Amino acid sequence: MKRGRKHILAALVALAFATVAMAQDPLPSWNDGPAKKAIVDFVARATKAGSPAFVPPEERIATFDNDGTLWAEQPIYFQLIFALDRVKALAPQHPEWKDKEPFASLLKGDVTGALAGGDRSILEIVMATHAGMTAAEFEKIVTDWIATAKHPKTGKLFTDMVYQPMLELLAYLRANGFKTFIVSGGGIEFMRPWTEKVYGIPPEQVVGSSIKTKYEFRDGKPVLVRLPEINFIDDKTGKPVGINSHVGRRPVAAFGNSDGDQQMLEWTQAGGRARLMMLVHHDDARREWAYGPESKIGTFSDSLMAQAKKNGWTIISMKNDWKRIFAFER
Amino acid sequence: MKRGRKHILAALVALAFATVAMAQDPLPSWNDGPAKKAIVDFVARATKAGSPAFVPPEERIATFDNDGTLWAEQPIYFQLIFALDRVKALAPQHPEWKDKEPFASLLKGDVTGALAGGDRSILEIVMATHAGMTAAEFEKIVTDWIATAKHPKTGKLFTDMVYQPMLELLAYLRANGFKTFIVSGGGIEFMRPWTEKVYGIPPEQVVGSSIKTKYEFRDGKPVLVRLPEINFIDDKTGKPVGINSHVGRRPVAAFGNSDGDQQMLEWTQAGGRARLMMLVHHDDARREWAYGPESKIGTFSDSLMAQAKKNGWTIISMKNDWKRIFAFER
Repeated sequence: MKRGRKHILAALVALAFATVAMAQDPLPSWNDGPAKKAIVDFVARATKAGSPAFVPPEERIATFDNDGTLWAEQPIYFQLIFALDRVKALAPQHPEWKDKEPFASLLKGDVTGALAGGDRSILEIVMATHAGMTAAEFEKIVTDWIATAKHPKTGKLFTDMVYQPMLELLAYLRANGFKTFIVSGGGIEFMRPWTEKVYGIPPEQVVGSSIKTKYEFRDGKPVLVRLPEINFIDDKTGKPVGINSHVGRRPVAAFGNSDGDQQMLEWTQAGGRARLMMLVHHDDARREWAYGPESKIGTFSDSLMAQAKKNGWTIISMKNDWKRIFAFER
Repeated sequence: MKRGRKHILAALVALAFATVAMAQDPLPSWNDGPAKKAIVDFVARATKAGSPAFVPPEERIATFDNDGTLWAEQPIYFQLIFALDRVKALAPQHPEWKDKEPFASLLKGDVTGALAGGDRSILEIVMATHAGMTAAEFEKIVTDWIATAKHPKTGKLFTDMVYQPMLELLAYLRANGFKTFIVSGGGIEFMRPWTEKVYGIPPEQVVGSSIKTKYEFRDGKPVLVRLPEINFIDDKTGKPVGINSHVGRRPVAAFGNSDGDQQMLEWTQAGGRARLMMLVHHDDARREWAYGPESKIGTFSDSLMAQAKKNGWTIISMKNDWKRIFAFER
């Protein structure tokens, strides 16, 4: 076949597939209801040239919290499970941990006791497990863990605990010219090794909390050493700061699930024009978990709910809006 | 005309243009020589599927210093000219500056005297002119200034002082699937308002030095207030740190022009496989400026030159490698 004809054929085939794809429901795991309608209506308005709500392609920025928004976060944040696993793995090199809290309780299997010290205990555990190695070494540790570690309740890989409806939403937004970012309180270097494969979000579109790193030479090669010092906390008021630092534009759509996401949604909404703000509500004890104001992980306070109603933010009810939660339920 | 036919026609027209573009020299402002050859050879190897030097599209990250690499930096960094202009504009609101250095000298027109205090004077001038307003207000100030301010020697807009060969290089890399980033010691929020229009580099691909910002409410609206406190210096060892923080991948190509770029090039090269490291050398006193080890702006030390030779980094001689430096020379 001649080269020119081949190209025309390829273009026609691509066109045919695009038409079929558009005819299919891009959000098959969403029930018809207010949440799905809010998404589809927003995308239609934002992408319609000439519409007053039209958003130029380069400004189509959508930001997603991770824990509790894109993947589960119970019984504790998965990154904390990673840290606890690391404490066990590193214990032989740290005989002093046997008599030192929070490590001592942890090594006896008493997670509640280990975390009794609150943020201070968590910080100690994080620094002991996330610092002291190079960035490349840490990336390998995370990559190995995420490929094998299992969720304590479901027995599934943690990357199987992502929400199928949100994967569809990410793909649907990208198909409509949106650039999707993660903006999470979790560690930026804990997420980057797997977000591209799991969510289709490349490392340069991941914003998160971080510790400081230092450039130096080891064995004649340049490395970035991870220091036991907080650099940035990407939570609450930190989320608009992190977005401004990494993205440099205001999102037009933002998705969260807890009090930690309040400011990201406020910041998004204050940009005016067409905006979409949504909060995943964990109200399905049968298929996932049900928790809200009382929970320490993913707190969804009554005041956040009141603010959502007042500001017109859409609540996604996992129970009512999602046909399926995880890809493994079939 | 039927819809289907229209699409085929559009596809054919696009194809025809693409073929013409490929046949033309993508780097017309570059003389044939070692620098142009290094670029073209690298791109050919990195994009050839099956080649041992093949770089998957998602890993095609190219980082560019800004001052002295993408645009000029003489007689002083353009951002410093912006700061000096701001001091003059703000002087009526600061009567105390009349008797306070470095402002007093500056307001008398004595720039050399004002900068005699070195980094400390510069820091005072930067903080007085870059902090204290919201991020949106600062963006507007920069946008207004860059649209009108003129270079003291050429009388051109500063955005006309960009290097035509580098614009071609940016476009050539992007046409070959590379994502182009700026990694500059300059202020991230000073660059973002104009880099998309001038270089085709969107805000989310700009890495630079920054001051801290704080999320708060003013008149019932959320704002990010710029604080007079350094957040990050994106220079020397800071460049690999900034790249790791914002990009989360190691570049495969890096371009600089001074000692401030040494570590970025080292970090890029240490990634192994196909890598391209280049340094713009300001050796054309007739068409631009000639400066090197002795210059405070854009220092290109003898040890950097020695390291470039030892490591196989390519020197771009502005005099010999560039047919044209600025678009306005015709």
